[in-house]
Amino acid sequence: MAPLVNQQDLEFLLNDVFSAEALTKFPRYADYDQEAFTSVLDTARRIAETHFLPHNAKADAHEPQFDGAKVTTIPEVKTAWQHYADSGLLSARHGYDEGGMQLPALISMACNAYFMAANPATAAYPFLTSAAANVIHAFGSEAQKQRFLEPMFSGRFAGTMALTEPDVGSSLGDLTTKAVAHGDGSYRLKGQKMYISGGDQDITENIVHLVLARIEGAPTGVKGISMFIVPKLLVDEQGNCTSENDVKLAGLLHKMGYRGTTSTVLSFGEQDACVGYLVGEAGKGLSYMFKMMNEARVGVGLGAAMIGYRGYLESLAYAKDRPQGRSIANRDPASKPVAIIQHADVKRMLLQQKAYVEGSLALCLLAARLVDEHEAGDNADSGILLDLLTPVVKSYPSFYGPRANDLAIQVLGGAGYIREYPVEQCFRDNRLNPIHEGTHGIQGLDLLGRKLWQHEGKGLKLLLERIQITLHAAAKAPELQEVVALYQSALKPFMTTTVELGQALLGNKAEGTLANASVYLDIMGKYVVGWLWIEMVEKALLNAEHLSQEFVQGKLQAARYFMRWELPEAELHLKRLQAADDTFMATEPEWL
Amino acid sequence: MAPLVNQQDLEFLLNDVFSAEALTKFPRYADYDQEAFTSVLDTARRIAETHFLPHNAKADAHEPQFDGAKVTTIPEVKTAWQHYADSGLLSARHGYDEGGMQLPALISMACNAYFMAANPATAAYPFLTSAAANVIHAFGSEAQKQRFLEPMFSGRFAGTMALTEPDVGSSLGDLTTKAVAHGDGSYRLKGQKMYISGGDQDITENIVHLVLARIEGAPTGVKGISMFIVPKLLVDEQGNCTSENDVKLAGLLHKMGYRGTTSTVLSFGEQDACVGYLVGEAGKGLSYMFKMMNEARVGVGLGAAMIGYRGYLESLAYAKDRPQGRSIANRDPASKPVAIIQHADVKRMLLQQKAYVEGSLALCLLAARLVDEHEAGDNADSGILLDLLTPVVKSYPSFYGPRANDLAIQVLGGAGYIREYPVEQCFRDNRLNPIHEGTHGIQGLDLLGRKLWQHEGKGLKLLLERIQITLHAAAKAPELQEVVALYQSALKPFMTTTVELGQALLGNKAEGTLANASVYLDIMGKYVVGWLWIEMVEKALLNAEHLSQEFVQGKLQAARYFMRWELPEAELHLKRLQAADDTFMATEPEWL
Repeated sequence: MAPLVNQQDLEFLLNDVFSAEALTKFPRYADYDQEAFTSVLDTARRIAETHFLPHNAKADAHEPQFDGAKVTTIPEVKTAWQHYADSGLLSARHGYDEGGMQLPALISMACNAYFMAANPATAAYPFLTSAAANVIHAFGSEAQKQRFLEPMFSGRFAGTMALTEPDVGSSLGDLTTKAVAHGDGSYRLKGQKMYISGGDQDITENIVHLVLARIEGAPTGVKGISMFIVPKLLVDEQGNCTSENDVKLAGLLHKMGYRGTTSTVLSFGEQDACVGYLVGEAGKGLSYMFKMMNEARVGVGLGAAMIGYRGYLESLAYAKDRPQGRSIANRDPASKPVAIIQHADVKRMLLQQKAYVEGSLALCLLAARLVDEHEAGDNADSGILLDLLTPVVKSYPSFYGPRANDLAIQVLGGAGYIREYPVEQCFRDNRLNPIHEGTHGIQGLDLLGRKLWQHEGKGLKLLLERIQITLHAAAKAPELQEVVALYQSALKPFMTTTVELGQALLGNKAEGTLANASVYLDIMGKYVVGWLWIEMVEKALLNAEHLSQEFVQGKLQAARYFMRWELPEAELHLKRLQAADDTFMATEPEWL
Repeated sequence: MAPLVNQQDLEFLLNDVFSAEALTKFPRYADYDQEAFTSVLDTARRIAETHFLPHNAKADAHEPQFDGAKVTTIPEVKTAWQHYADSGLLSARHGYDEGGMQLPALISMACNAYFMAANPATAAYPFLTSAAANVIHAFGSEAQKQRFLEPMFSGRFAGTMALTEPDVGSSLGDLTTKAVAHGDGSYRLKGQKMYISGGDQDITENIVHLVLARIEGAPTGVKGISMFIVPKLLVDEQGNCTSENDVKLAGLLHKMGYRGTTSTVLSFGEQDACVGYLVGEAGKGLSYMFKMMNEARVGVGLGAAMIGYRGYLESLAYAKDRPQGRSIANRDPASKPVAIIQHADVKRMLLQQKAYVEGSLALCLLAARLVDEHEAGDNADSGILLDLLTPVVKSYPSFYGPRANDLAIQVLGGAGYIREYPVEQCFRDNRLNPIHEGTHGIQGLDLLGRKLWQHEGKGLKLLLERIQITLHAAAKAPELQEVVALYQSALKPFMTTTVELGQALLGNKAEGTLANASVYLDIMGKYVVGWLWIEMVEKALLNAEHLSQEFVQGKLQAARYFMRWELPEAELHLKRLQAADDTFMATEPEWL
């Protein structure tokens, strides 16, 4: 069994690339030091290895069952939940005054990386709970916090987000779940929600659903959407669960991957008795949900990165261990076969995986670093940059993580596609990530249609500044000349084309420009991750004395691969966008 | 439920592109006419729709079980087998004198296309049986034919190919299964084989394994390999099954897809009593197996193409039916949502699928057409071209078919990754195809290291001649100017680089050149399929009067997509090969 993550890589990213220790200069994190961070990470890794990893395949093979009355999950999931909850990680990022660990986002993200690599399906329960709790924390009333937040932080209650409806999908403005004021401050909800992860389970005493619904008489579209707390069991003021709320599990959905996480269809108010509590102001539901959603999107990116990472390490271990074939030059059939990692094509598939997954992990940790700078460091610019990058952090790992898993299978050959080896499950698990929490198409529209131009394009300016700093530093290293030159020459068309696309969006070419939005999303991902690869090598060379030589060379080779093989694809795409390629727009549905 | 294949497309390919009727000029096919072909195709489609499609998902959900003594498959598989056998398709290609249908390969391939789209896992049993029977037909003794061939053609016995061993994988020269002469003309075999598809089942009375083994004292390497017929049950001279042979099922492997096909580990000779019969001459086993293997490789290509095709049609039907969202320009939330096929990004994902799967089907039918020209038409050139193209026919659909299935899932969004919809299974089924019967890596080495240079490079010359004929004809159509110009300008670097690679292989750069063989394989696939796209549009324009206008426009738009988006990727790869990119070769295993 390969390790969950390359420990040297994770430590390098935290310490040498994202300067974890520097975070302790922020007053909020002043109590921490490097040792304390390490101790938290060790705890997370130990729980992931001991209580999440061992049942990863079992939870996949024995997915949750629904007998019409009750959902049953394998008992290991509850045990894992309990250990996670006991560690305090459910409220890791919250303040000491709230019983939290006041942990930086960067360290919290690194902890989550272990769980995502070990068992993404079981990890989904605590991660969704943390995200839902954060919304109540940010927008709920004091009474709501008292009643729901403490039991969520302690692990008694789990949380979900209930947005999607069967006929509506991602077009949230069309959702029809209704809420009627009951006169006592509460509401009665009626409607159906679908694809609700963790929407029912037998792990926790209660489940807190955050439901988007439309208050009677609210306007159509997104402005009429409000958010409600809808507990599975009603809760009295002392926090005790009293009786069942009118929330019914209509059925489970059977997924390709993440099988251990229930995916549910929920009926609210079949008996007209579904009690819900309005969160914050009416009509602001979607903006509240986006706090959770943005966090969830980064979480999806991390999941995709780590499932990809696990597949990489498993296929790497296999390739080093498996003898088969001989070198091209060796024609002696009596000679001993070599390990398949000696074959150039296997090296290709491993190097490509490395470039994708280590780049993706770096991207997710960058997002966490920006959260810290923004929140604890009170740096507005970091918040703007994070906003710009969120669709990329969601999408790049979701696109290239599965590609990595595909290559991992290919490295193993026949062993790759049988369930007797772990990479098969990685491939299935990761296939959900390009879809849930917003498809590439949606992320592309968000990026090209909105995020790039917010704050007068400041996000992009900030990104380019950071890139220039990296290029400037990297230019000093002779080993990096080729890498820097390739990136630098590719950067110009990226900038000019982006500006041109912005102008086209203002004119009457908006529709044609946005038609290629998901292509632009892919381009942006390659430039951002390409930058991070240069940043990584530059820091690896700088810190070479405490890193292994192989590690430094590996980073350098992956960066070379990225600039020679990945970036040119982005340049090719840019040419198409610059030429306003209309192949897809001009395709009539009847032609298909 | 979408159709298995676009009927207009299949008929167009058979009639307008590959001139099925012209085959009736060959004496062997003189009894056929267009109507007779249609009648055979209708029968195949009806059996596929009635007896294969309905249990496709069920056989996936209820995979074969092994209780330690016996394998159980769901009963529908046996029924499907029986209907297939009764139709005569098991010996479709064989002569009337042998009870066959004397059907052209082109029509046989088109029949198979229905089965592969309907249920690739169940279709594997008859397809493997036909392939094994063909080997016995070609190389077996008269006595062997009498004893084994008739029951295989009639459906009493199934067939398998047993090559791979646990410690050997694709490196067949290292296989260790032993055969000892028994004195009575038969042999006793001993060894273990793995990943044997259909290696055990409860569908047929008996199973005929074609086993590669090494006769005691044979040289090491591939020259010491012989082929043996090893029946599961021993068969007397009257063709009756008498007693069990010493072939034991050690276990089933649990695959990601094709779950309905058993994948087995077989132990031969645990009791030292495994009877086998030498096929043909000793030491020629591998060359015999390659007859079957080449056929199986084209079959894998077809399977990949048709699983991709089915996913395309399913996602197309969903996209036309599913309302969600509005056009970019429409900001009125009260307006009705449009079908998602109206969104440019969905059109992109559908057009891309169309380009991959219709191109892949055309490629497989081309291979069949070459078989007919070669065998019935006695045209040696066609055989040489088929030989060159076989790795491409195996690999292009295996690479791009799964890509199409990935896009099909993406079109469906959340519905795409749940087993309640069919595209999820397509994606899993298709993931086997880039591996079994030789990975891309192996196909790449076969193409660049061998096939290109056989017969003094005649295969490539023949290919280029055909391409030039197409380009010449297409240049007359004004609609095709852009498409032809793009292809033409891309063709030059393909030719020059290929020649350069050939020279490099002769010198001391062989290892470095072959290091990028799988990249070259991808390039070649794009050029060949790109050519077929031009051929298709040219023929569609020519036959526009009996085709729907939408069909012709669709072909044209897919060809435009191919030249604008796919071919440039191949040109980019060519530049890397021309520059002798050594990124992968130069990567040290320790860096990974």
